[in-house]
Amino acid sequence: MTNVQFNENGLVPAIVQDAQTKEVLTLAYMNQEALDLTIETKESWFYSRSRKELWNKGATSGNKQEVIEIRYDCDQDAVLLFVNPKGPACHTGAVSCFKGDSENDRNTSNPFAILESLEKTISNRK
Amino acid sequence: MTNVQFNENGLVPAIVQDAQTKEVLTLAYMNQEALDLTIETKESWFYSRSRKELWNKGATSGNKQEVIEIRYDCDQDAVLLFVNPKGPACHTGAVSCFKGDSENDRNTSNPFAILESLEKTISNRK
Repeated sequence: MTNVQFNENGLVPAIVQDAQTKEVLTLAYMNQEALDLTIETKESWFYSRSRKELWNKGATSGNKQEVIEIRYDCDQDAVLLFVNPKGPACHTGAVSCFKGDSENDRNTSNPFAILESLEKTISNRK
Repeated sequence: MTNVQFNENGLVPAIVQDAQTKEVLTLAYMNQEALDLTIETKESWFYSRSRKELWNKGATSGNKQEVIEIRYDCDQDAVLLFVNPKGPACHTGAVSCFKGDSENDRNTSNPFAILESLEKTISNRK
């Protein structure tokens, strides 16, 4: 039996990973009920901290997630779901909630940033 | 610029993913300083909730993590690190903290569980 450690708010973070592509899709939170429903229905259920309610992922959008496997970490205070997503995971329509906001993306949004970096390198090699 | 949302304890959850294998290694927590140090040193830094101190992953074990990329999620309250790990991520010696404790593992620990499942299938097909 699992002995999942819920935090002081009764929640445990759940990482959602695409079972095929291995892409990390979302970090969401579960309470005991959401975890039980996920195990029972093999669909991902979370607890929305903003709406303060249980949330069956994709129930309105249709972008459900079939849960293939559930793992827990070494100290059982984090959950990892392997899923087959039926559509985009993110409310923005992106495949993953972690799309399009990386340090790298920001750097490449200013193509001239490389010049400053180059100038420093040249200066250091004098 | 990022505008990372730290929780009421000043922490943000950080998912650590192997940049090559895409395996999820750990879920840890960062405060602002840990995030700054991670960006600056390109090594993973976390905040240990139990020890209440900054923690440079691998500083004692040698199992450091070279940080290749840092991403934030759509509402900027979760971090995703792509890393090249220099050794096991877990204090147990496992490659990932999510190894060896899955619902599936538990099921296969009882090899006869398949019989019950088979019996149900046969019964349903009568």
